Amino acid sequence: MDRSAEFRKRKAQCLGKADLSRKGSVDDGVVELVQLLNSQDQFFTTSSCAGRILLLDGGINGFAVQKQNCCWLLVTHKPCIKEDVIVALKKASGDAVLKFEPFVLHVQCQQLQDAQFLHSAAIECGFRNSGITVGKRGKTMLAVRSTHSLEVPLSHKGKLMVTEEYIDFLLNIANHKMEENSKRIERFYNCLRHALERETVPNSHPKIKEKSNPSYTHKKKRNPEKAHGKCITEENNKEPESDDDDPGISVNIFPQDY
Amino acid sequence: MDRSAEFRKRKAQCLGKADLSRKGSVDDGVVELVQLLNSQDQFFTTSSCAGRILLLDGGINGFAVQKQNCCWLLVTHKPCIKEDVIVALKKASGDAVLKFEPFVLHVQCQQLQDAQFLHSAAIECGFRNSGITVGKRGKTMLAVRSTHSLEVPLSHKGKLMVTEEYIDFLLNIANHKMEENSKRIERFYNCLRHALERETVPNSHPKIKEKSNPSYTHKKKRNPEKAHGKCITEENNKEPESDDDDPGISVNIFPQDY
Repeated sequence: MDRSAEFRKRKAQCLGKADLSRKGSVDDGVVELVQLLNSQDQFFTTSSCAGRILLLDGGINGFAVQKQNCCWLLVTHKPCIKEDVIVALKKASGDAVLKFEPFVLHVQCQQLQDAQFLHSAAIECGFRNSGITVGKRGKTMLAVRSTHSLEVPLSHKGKLMVTEEYIDFLLNIANHKMEENSKRIERFYNCLRHALERETVPNSHPKIKEKSNPSYTHKKKRNPEKAHGKCITEENNKEPESDDDDPGISVNIFPQDY
Repeated sequence: MDRSAEFRKRKAQCLGKADLSRKGSVDDGVVELVQLLNSQDQFFTTSSCAGRILLLDGGINGFAVQKQNCCWLLVTHKPCIKEDVIVALKKASGDAVLKFEPFVLHVQCQQLQDAQFLHSAAIECGFRNSGITVGKRGKTMLAVRSTHSLEVPLSHKGKLMVTEEYIDFLLNIANHKMEENSKRIERFYNCLRHALERETVPNSHPKIKEKSNPSYTHKKKRNPEKAHGKCITEENNKEPESDDDDPGISVNIFPQDY
């Protein structure tokens, strides 16, 4: 079976099988994006999370959590209020940690240059921890990852270590990050939709071309987040070498209004 | 100039130029690893951080930090004590955030399969957010990234939002993460050294082979971290689709004692 037939078969198998995640369905916040990608011959999504606020009752020092011992006290994909966290914290017996986990998406790509195309879009939209994985048999995945997270220990051996005022303050930040996260997903969806309309990503290539693809030859445009130094994480990457996270792929494959 | 000559030239240029990072030199914790990689024809490192505890005076809600306004109140690559943070916090006027940033490394690779080889090693050693970037002209980078971080807002508009006891508790966690981080760097160095001794990674290929390379055909071995469900972040990835972060590349290219 040729590579593209094999890819179509894997795509059909993967999209056909039951969603085995805890939730059992795609998060509302990413349904459109997932549908857009799965409507393309050269892509299919294998996992996604729109972003969530999570309260875990973990091991001491936030480490050595055995799967069977780690307990989710609270998980929500929507903004969260103090009362919910206070109630959930009463169930904590170990070290409870509040986390904001941003949007994450895994996409299987038919060819390396399909992954490069998607990676460029992700970087453009500020998902700077995105990266490609090429498996031993050539299975090519793109992981879209953001840099915006939050991980805050709240209790130690069941004892609350912060005030309710702090939890309120923290949830403002977490909710604000969730809002930013949603805007960024929307930006990614729009960028991708425009780019896909304007580009015809080849579905089949006899071999991977390492030469520049027309879609990568436009004038380089910096990722807006980066241009404005908007986020702390990127701020920490101010050393010149941090540009290596963006090695010449952050090209403008999008309309000027992005 | 052929691809491998071009790579050698870029490597010489890159390693020859001054280190423009704030620190101006490679962190002690990664010197050996950086030297090991740079001693290989098919790799050179372009940036690294051994891992650090950082106190930033950022913008409100930990967002919209303008580069010029973001201030590093404290940065250390060593374990940190409460008093240092208390003193540094006195200088905070915005929202101060304490972060632990784990080891990060960027490596330029001659060929895609060199990056795959290194990526396998990184995943094996638990650096699950690692990923490959292929630039528009084929420039191939591997970013080695960990999942173990910490990001904790401490003050709001200069007002401390937590107790000294909490800062002490938090630094225990941060210092413990730094210790784990060092062990993981050491493990990565040893895994890589053994793997490089046992493998001859081709330095030049007429074209990228997507077929299995002998170095990827050994019996698959799970990443130990993952096997033991050791870390919270991985715990959150318990959904079956989280395996997509590890799409068949976590093969055993290392001695059985790893």
